[in-house]
Amino acid sequence: MTHTPRLFVPLITPFAQDLSVDVPRLQAVAQRMLDDGADGLAPFGTTSEATSMSVEERIMALEALVEAGIDPGCLIPGTGCAALPDTIRLTRHAVSLGARGTLTLPPFFYKPLSEEGVFAAYARVIEAVGPGLRLFLYHIPQMSGVPITVELIGRLMDAFPGVVAGLKDSSGNWDNTAAIIAAFPEIETYSASEALLVRNVAAGGAGCISASANINAHGIAALIRGLGTPDEAALLADAAAIRGLCEKLPLIPGVKAIVARRMKDDAYARVRPPLVAVGQDHSVAVAAVAARSYGESASV
Amino acid sequence: MTHTPRLFVPLITPFAQDLSVDVPRLQAVAQRMLDDGADGLAPFGTTSEATSMSVEERIMALEALVEAGIDPGCLIPGTGCAALPDTIRLTRHAVSLGARGTLTLPPFFYKPLSEEGVFAAYARVIEAVGPGLRLFLYHIPQMSGVPITVELIGRLMDAFPGVVAGLKDSSGNWDNTAAIIAAFPEIETYSASEALLVRNVAAGGAGCISASANINAHGIAALIRGLGTPDEAALLADAAAIRGLCEKLPLIPGVKAIVARRMKDDAYARVRPPLVAVGQDHSVAVAAVAARSYGESASV
Repeated sequence: MTHTPRLFVPLITPFAQDLSVDVPRLQAVAQRMLDDGADGLAPFGTTSEATSMSVEERIMALEALVEAGIDPGCLIPGTGCAALPDTIRLTRHAVSLGARGTLTLPPFFYKPLSEEGVFAAYARVIEAVGPGLRLFLYHIPQMSGVPITVELIGRLMDAFPGVVAGLKDSSGNWDNTAAIIAAFPEIETYSASEALLVRNVAAGGAGCISASANINAHGIAALIRGLGTPDEAALLADAAAIRGLCEKLPLIPGVKAIVARRMKDDAYARVRPPLVAVGQDHSVAVAAVAARSYGESASV
Repeated sequence: MTHTPRLFVPLITPFAQDLSVDVPRLQAVAQRMLDDGADGLAPFGTTSEATSMSVEERIMALEALVEAGIDPGCLIPGTGCAALPDTIRLTRHAVSLGARGTLTLPPFFYKPLSEEGVFAAYARVIEAVGPGLRLFLYHIPQMSGVPITVELIGRLMDAFPGVVAGLKDSSGNWDNTAAIIAAFPEIETYSASEALLVRNVAAGGAGCISASANINAHGIAALIRGLGTPDEAALLADAAAIRGLCEKLPLIPGVKAIVARRMKDDAYARVRPPLVAVGQDHSVAVAAVAARSYGESASV
C-alpha cells in the first residue's frame, strides 16, 4: 500500500506572560504552518509541551484552532496522558470535533511496563471512545519510557480492526521505523525528522511529523513536492541541514526561539517549566537557523 | 536535629469494577492502616496509582479520607503531575484541607531536565500555592526520570525558607539518602523501605514511607517502637523479610493482592491499566507474605 506523503506540524504552543495558553498566537502560528504548505497539524504533542498543560487547557486550545477556521480533518492532536481518564476525555473530545485522528502516548509514569499493561491501557481508550476513532500510536521511548513494539501494534490491530490508523516513530531509530512499515504497510507510519523523509516514503511510510517543521514547513513541503524529481537530493540536503542546526539547540526551546525570530515577536519563545527558554548564549545558533530557513541575515 | 521516627503509608487506591475510585474501600483501608499503628498516610503516590487518576478523582478521594474522619494533619498526599497547572491545583487543595504537607513529584515527561527547569517548576508551585505549604520532595528517578539532587534541594531551601519540609527517597540508594540527611538534617528525610529504617533513623532521618507498609504497618510500627531496644534487630529482620517477599512480586499489584487476601475481599486487588493485576501464578507468593505478615496459614 502506498500513502500520499504528508507533513504534519507538531505545533508549538505559545504561552502568555502569565504562562497561560496564548490563543491568538496559537491560532496565528497554526495558520502560518498551513500557509507554508503543511498538510496538517499534530498539535499537543511533545513539541507542543502538551504534557505540561491541563486537560481543560488542551480542550480549549483544540477548540480554538477549529474556531479559527482550521479544518479538523487536517488535525491529529495529541491526547495521551499518564492517567487513563484524561486520555479518554481528550481522545473522545478530539473525535467529537471531527479530527483526522489522535496521536496518543501510552501512559508514561510507570516503567518498565508489560506489553499486557500497555495493551490494556490502549484497549480501554478504544472501547471508551467508540466509533470514529482513528488512533495514531506515539513511539517516543526516550520520553515516555514505554516503547510501542511491533507485537503491541499487531495485537491492537487484531483486537480492534480499523482503529489503528498510524504511528509516529520518534525514536530516531530508522531500523525500527522500517520494521514497522514492513510489518504494517496499511497504516500511516511517520518519521519524526525530515532527514528521514525520503527513506520513509520510499519504504512505504506516510511522511513526517517533525518538531523542526515549525521553522521549516515550507522547506519540507517543497521536499515532498520534489520527491522523485531531480531536485529531491538538494531539497533533502537543505531540509536535513536546517534540522541539523536545530539539533544543536535544546530542541523545543530552540524551535520556539526561531519561530519568535521569524514572527518578530519574542512572546513565541516562552516555554513552561520544566523546559527552560534558550538564552542569549544561543542567539548565534538561533540566527543561523533563521538565516538558513528564512533567508534572513545571520547577523545578530 | 532529631526527628520523631514515623511511618506514613503510601496507601493503595482501591478501584471498583468499572475502575472508578472505590471510596468506601479507600476509607476502610486508610482507617485500617492507622489502626495498625501507622503515624499517617501518604495517599496518591506511586503505590496509589495516583498518576493513573485524574485531578478531579484525586481531589474527591482526598476529601473522602477527611470526610471519613481521618485527621488531615496526618496526611501527606501526593500532588505532583506532569502538568504544572495540575500540580498547583492539587497542592493548593491539599493545603486548603490542612494536610501535614504534600509529597510532590517533579514534572515527569521531559527528560533529561536541567536543574534550572526542575527548580523553576517547583518554584512556580510554591509561589502559586503561597503560605501554609509544607513541601516534601519526591525522589523516584526510576519512574520520574528526574532526580531531586542535593543541589536542587539546597537551592529550593535557600529561595523559599521554611517551605521544604522533607523528602522521600525511593531510589533505593542508601548513600544518596545518607548524603541528603547529612546535608539537610533539619528536613524530614524518609526511606522508601522499612529495611532501611534503622539506618535512616540512626543517621538522623525521619522514618519510612514504604509500599509494603500497606501489608505490614503493624510490623513496621512495632519496629519503630522497638528502636534502640533489645528487640530492634529481630523486629528489623522480620520487617525486612516481609519486604523481601513483597519484592518477589510485581510490587504494586502484589501489595494490592495481599491486602485483598487480608481483607478477604478480592476487590482490593484491582489495578488500573497500565498496571496488571497479579494472577494465579503468584498466589503462592501472595500467600507466603500474608502468612508471614498476618500469621495466616500459608496453604492456598
